Amino acid sequence: MERFPLKSSVSKAGTTYQSVYKKGTSAGNGRGGVTPEDDMVEIAPGDATPTSHGTFQLYEHSGRNNSNASANCDADDIPGIGQYDDFHTIDWQRDIARDRMRHRYIVKKRQDSIWDLIKGAHDAWSGWVCVLLVGVCTGVVAGVIDIGASWMTDLKFGICPQAFWFNREQCCWSNDEITFDHTNCSQWLTWPQVFGESRDGAGAYIVSYLFYIVWALLFAALSASLVRMFAPYACGSGIPEIKTILSGFIIRGYLGKWTLIIKVVGLILSVSSGLSLGKEGPMVHIASCLGNILSYLFPKYGRNEAKKREILSAAAAAGVSVAFGAPIGGVLFSLEEVSYYFPLKTLWRSFFCALIAAFILRSINPFGNEHSVLFFVEYNKPWIFFELIPFIGLGIIGGVIATIFIKANIYWCRYRKYSKLGQYPVTEVLVVTLITAVIAYPNPYTRMNTSQLIYLLFNQCGISNSDPLCRYNRNFTGVNTAIERAAATSEVYNAMGLLFLALLLKLVMTVFTFGIKVPCGLFIPSLALGAIAGRIVGIGMEQLAYTYQNIWIFSGECSTGDDCITPGLYAMVGAAAVLGGVTRMTVSLVVIMFELTGGVRYIVPLMAAAMASKWVGDALGRQGIYDAHIALNGYPFLDSKDEFQHTSLAADVMQPKRNESLAVITQDSMTVDDVETLLKETEHNGYPVVVSKESQYLVGFVLRRDLNLAIANARRTLDGITGQTVVVFAGPATPGTLPLNRILDMAPITVTDQTPMETVVDMFRKLGLRQTLVTHNGRLLGVITKKDVLRHVKQMDNEDPNSVLFN
Amino acid sequence: MERFPLKSSVSKAGTTYQSVYKKGTSAGNGRGGVTPEDDMVEIAPGDATPTSHGTFQLYEHSGRNNSNASANCDADDIPGIGQYDDFHTIDWQRDIARDRMRHRYIVKKRQDSIWDLIKGAHDAWSGWVCVLLVGVCTGVVAGVIDIGASWMTDLKFGICPQAFWFNREQCCWSNDEITFDHTNCSQWLTWPQVFGESRDGAGAYIVSYLFYIVWALLFAALSASLVRMFAPYACGSGIPEIKTILSGFIIRGYLGKWTLIIKVVGLILSVSSGLSLGKEGPMVHIASCLGNILSYLFPKYGRNEAKKREILSAAAAAGVSVAFGAPIGGVLFSLEEVSYYFPLKTLWRSFFCALIAAFILRSINPFGNEHSVLFFVEYNKPWIFFELIPFIGLGIIGGVIATIFIKANIYWCRYRKYSKLGQYPVTEVLVVTLITAVIAYPNPYTRMNTSQLIYLLFNQCGISNSDPLCRYNRNFTGVNTAIERAAATSEVYNAMGLLFLALLLKLVMTVFTFGIKVPCGLFIPSLALGAIAGRIVGIGMEQLAYTYQNIWIFSGECSTGDDCITPGLYAMVGAAAVLGGVTRMTVSLVVIMFELTGGVRYIVPLMAAAMASKWVGDALGRQGIYDAHIALNGYPFLDSKDEFQHTSLAADVMQPKRNESLAVITQDSMTVDDVETLLKETEHNGYPVVVSKESQYLVGFVLRRDLNLAIANARRTLDGITGQTVVVFAGPATPGTLPLNRILDMAPITVTDQTPMETVVDMFRKLGLRQTLVTHNGRLLGVITKKDVLRHVKQMDNEDPNSVLFN
Repeated sequence: MERFPLKSSVSKAGTTYQSVYKKGTSAGNGRGGVTPEDDMVEIAPGDATPTSHGTFQLYEHSGRNNSNASANCDADDIPGIGQYDDFHTIDWQRDIARDRMRHRYIVKKRQDSIWDLIKGAHDAWSGWVCVLLVGVCTGVVAGVIDIGASWMTDLKFGICPQAFWFNREQCCWSNDEITFDHTNCSQWLTWPQVFGESRDGAGAYIVSYLFYIVWALLFAALSASLVRMFAPYACGSGIPEIKTILSGFIIRGYLGKWTLIIKVVGLILSVSSGLSLGKEGPMVHIASCLGNILSYLFPKYGRNEAKKREILSAAAAAGVSVAFGAPIGGVLFSLEEVSYYFPLKTLWRSFFCALIAAFILRSINPFGNEHSVLFFVEYNKPWIFFELIPFIGLGIIGGVIATIFIKANIYWCRYRKYSKLGQYPVTEVLVVTLITAVIAYPNPYTRMNTSQLIYLLFNQCGISNSDPLCRYNRNFTGVNTAIERAAATSEVYNAMGLLFLALLLKLVMTVFTFGIKVPCGLFIPSLALGAIAGRIVGIGMEQLAYTYQNIWIFSGECSTGDDCITPGLYAMVGAAAVLGGVTRMTVSLVVIMFELTGGVRYIVPLMAAAMASKWVGDALGRQGIYDAHIALNGYPFLDSKDEFQHTSLAADVMQPKRNESLAVITQDSMTVDDVETLLKETEHNGYPVVVSKESQYLVGFVLRRDLNLAIANARRTLDGITGQTVVVFAGPATPGTLPLNRILDMAPITVTDQTPMETVVDMFRKLGLRQTLVTHNGRLLGVITKKDVLRHVKQMDNEDPNSVLFN
Repeated sequence: MERFPLKSSVSKAGTTYQSVYKKGTSAGNGRGGVTPEDDMVEIAPGDATPTSHGTFQLYEHSGRNNSNASANCDADDIPGIGQYDDFHTIDWQRDIARDRMRHRYIVKKRQDSIWDLIKGAHDAWSGWVCVLLVGVCTGVVAGVIDIGASWMTDLKFGICPQAFWFNREQCCWSNDEITFDHTNCSQWLTWPQVFGESRDGAGAYIVSYLFYIVWALLFAALSASLVRMFAPYACGSGIPEIKTILSGFIIRGYLGKWTLIIKVVGLILSVSSGLSLGKEGPMVHIASCLGNILSYLFPKYGRNEAKKREILSAAAAAGVSVAFGAPIGGVLFSLEEVSYYFPLKTLWRSFFCALIAAFILRSINPFGNEHSVLFFVEYNKPWIFFELIPFIGLGIIGGVIATIFIKANIYWCRYRKYSKLGQYPVTEVLVVTLITAVIAYPNPYTRMNTSQLIYLLFNQCGISNSDPLCRYNRNFTGVNTAIERAAATSEVYNAMGLLFLALLLKLVMTVFTFGIKVPCGLFIPSLALGAIAGRIVGIGMEQLAYTYQNIWIFSGECSTGDDCITPGLYAMVGAAAVLGGVTRMTVSLVVIMFELTGGVRYIVPLMAAAMASKWVGDALGRQGIYDAHIALNGYPFLDSKDEFQHTSLAADVMQPKRNESLAVITQDSMTVDDVETLLKETEHNGYPVVVSKESQYLVGFVLRRDLNLAIANARRTLDGITGQTVVVFAGPATPGTLPLNRILDMAPITVTDQTPMETVVDMFRKLGLRQTLVTHNGRLLGVITKKDVLRHVKQMDNEDPNSVLFN
């Protein structure tokens, strides 16, 4: 079991990234060319002692077929085997080989007894049971967050005196009042009313304003303090880190139980504080924490980092599923955006997990909403073909807004990272909250909950919609008749002005908000930005069609006198465009929007806008927000979507460079002293074994950790081992030598020095390598580690290669 | 451009598979251990001459960075380069490297002139333009098929005298008759009416019966003859072959224009003939043909087999999209079921393609249906939690039905393949059609179109449904009131009996139908089988709930007196269960069913049944129908879903075995005569190059084709080349030698002899290798080709390793 030390993580809080970053840099500069394997696991001698005997027992049983996976193929009962240190990269091949070996062992043993049969069945089912648990827990936690956030959001405006734990809607319902206009509800008391002020008037306004600001500051301060004190990893959306973790990196504690608890509580608080942030991204992080914690119940997943990532992928899908009520979209999001290693059998399990989570959340029904989708829309009119032009235009606008947002946000985050600002996270949160609250309150569109705003903008103006946005010069005669075409009143234009201000405010505030040290996501702010822009364009188009009724493009479809253009649809398309531009999601975006709104007929407009937005975004700035944050933080993420475009060869990238010497071990001519000297003098985490120093023909690869263990064990258990005893890795063991063939990996992956780097990068990605050995005519020339590859990619893209975070 | 020789494909018609199969077998037995590379491209000397000069020019320009892709990296203007022979496997790594090099060249040239800039832009857009064209064409072709098949299906029953090209529905519409009961329509004349018989009575029945049988036989005979004469590849569903092709195999003509034309015409005919088959599977084949043909408009895709498969994946998605009106399901089907190499950027393009196809088909609107989904359902009641038990039961029933179907069908297909039956395909089709028509006509549920049957079974009994299945003892008072719970009449029980007979008939006839030599799919028959079983179970549950109203499980949700159990929902769940059991689809199945029916609320029941069905199916028989047909036909398909479970090592699989010698070329000591002798004496398609025969240290790999080209060119262009001239592959070229370093691939993928086969299989799958070289301490030991891997997998699974089809 992973430990989550409360105290130590508190003390390291602010400095973790910084110190690791510096360590990585200095290591890179100081040791430079002579440390080819410096991203491999390094084990302190103290860790080695307790496992050494067990490890040796294992080797003796393992036979020739296990030679590949060598020291680490089994031994689930030996602590530390198959585990990695913090900020290390995992070896997918080895972990998967370990799992297959374990699986074979269980299948073989199944015939022995009924107990073994049950254990085998438990093992076979454990993946499904685990994702079932993850789905159920995710659904429940999402329900808690939804209920909590909605109650606390309303608390900023007033209280339900009869039952203070009711939010506004429940409070009004409890009295069986059914009104179209929710603004009047006698059960719910606003803060001025609580303190005896009248409902209207300047005094009441000021009291409301003050209460709003005070509650917002209180919530934000609480959230930021909790994060700072108990779980620094709980801040932000978490998606960049989860992408990195899923690509095979270890960030210990990032998915731990303290992060989970603080993220849940902090998220409720920060959403309620009225900051320009959403709860959807953090839901992915919360679900992944649940996946990580629950995987420890099943050793198959908890003790194997590669297998654990299957559960984490499913959990990420469940997170999106509950965030939007979109199980299919969640699975596609996990597949397209966050996952790295996604075998197809995991797809089915992820879908199961996402569906269970959505089902549980729907059963809890936190909003008391009869519709199963978040922003249910129903438009009378289908879209018209010529509308594709404004939809694509909206896509372009969305791409531009998204690019502005990404560039500004990254600029600000970089400033925060390298300036003194980063040292005062709580103060920063309070300042941002204060400014947001002060500016947001006067404008009704920024004062309201962002989800409510999006819902309002998506809606069609009908008989039940009394918002100023729907004050047209028309009379509604009945619910079922078509909506007639009508001129907008000045109230509509006023509302458009307020919406434009809201767009500016939200854009600016989100730039400063995304990255502060509270849990915060940007799905909802992005959707809101796009919905505002879309609604404005939509009303413009609608009024164009009204004014120029006889122009040919409008005269065909719009000739009946009914309203032929639905501004709500434009809002939906605009929302998809901005979200697509910010995250660079594609299929998953369209599917999420489709599931979010239930609008089956509108996939084509959504797709057109998403495509336009992605292309504009890609043309203006290469990276989506998550990739930009990965690069900013220097996470070692080898993107499987980017193609390696350059023509360098393996010989250009490998360590050591031509004029330096490579630290190798010979197969049968080095003494124990020689080996120990080498271990002392170099810091590599693994050494190639060659036939002889002169010939350099490659025999295999041995890990530093295994060498330490094996020599210590030999000194303890075998007689006559001195410093002069010759160590033999391959070939027949003669008396008086120390045979270590059992720790030799005789199947290292090799490439020739003339191999193009694009092939090497492909091998690292697809096979999940940690290192590969470079040969020429069978002779060993050097080593390429994942760190070397990442640095080379950065160098080729004219970025600082030393910014890659690595231990 | 690929050629589609009409005559030769006719003459080879019946024997193609058989002869290839025998060739593969004899080659395997005869050459056995000494032909490690026998699956590589073999080029007749005649093909080589025209390209040799161009090839050499290319080499001189290609510099050191091209050494990997060596001879085949560029030269789009040289015919034959980068192409493969029939029944060969493709080298993904090489093709992708070729494409990257081409891309780099275009990017570099883009700065030269505006014309090059335009060419660069065209190249960048060509993928999107190509899938757009594929989508549009697929939508149009699907519309043609739908219209044609619906007209010809109705032609079996009667004709519209005023406009013979109208089907029954259009004929009745044309007269503005709006009736709930479509059985009476004065415009449409049944065949007895055409010939002056009365509408009822035994005579009319017999005339109808005869006309039905005659039309069916006529359509089937035409379809089978067309397939036999013009395009033997047009038979069947095509999905097993497309899976094989997408995994990197060449079957020339399988996706050609004759196959396309005959498949479209034959599909209309065979669907209309009333055979127990569907048009959905063949739609995937038709779309893939369109993808293949249209890709030749874009050299980037047409001339690169690996890149072409990106278009084919998108086309497969479009095929499913138009078959079911399910674009998201189509993409997931392509991803999960048919595709092999599916980079994520292709996902977006596939989705675009699928969406365009669905959009075009919907614009054509072949059925004149206002609903955008194929089997639109709307149930009044949600499902109840305890219903999960019968749903899972249906899943188990579905799994059992599916397993019976697969086993019986494979048994029959194997019998056909190895008996005289296979020589009379047209006769077989006629016999099957005759039996189907004779048995099907009397039963109204088998007489009707299978899609109509499914729609009927999915439907809820409402005021507008007059089928005997809905004759309950209840009075409908209004459209909008709830349906009251009621006892079934004897008519319902009679209908259930007929349905049960229909189930048996359809099961038996589909076993004999799937595999006959007409275009035929099995999505619709599978759905029908499941829908019948589901409806029967559903009515049973409903009557249980009526009879035992007071039992605790029914008393809760069903206490209002309304009908609480919807038999139509059971039909839907049953349909998903059988289809899932037959194809072993998972996520894509659920998404297709969801898109097919528009039933957002019923994902959980669908998923439960699909899971149960898949597990039962996997427990009873390992393979789905497509994989079983792949195995039956011996296609060289390396399944990426199966895990390699065994413990063999690369040394156990490689060729030659230990006591045989390996054909190698030395880097600088063989003469032209030596090389030519080797080329004559061995049939390998490639040779490893080593330092010397004694040391066997690996230098690189050279293709037979390139050797032939290079020597022929040298003899023609260089003076002083004799049989005694020494050929130098590596190192400095001394005067009087023939330097061939430009054709040497210096970056072959190698593994050590101790590498477990699971790692080797993984490398073949993920890197798309054709062969890998096996070394020990840097010395070459042997070669493993894809054929060796496939044979080894078969051997380990106790199947005949020689059944693998390969040239």
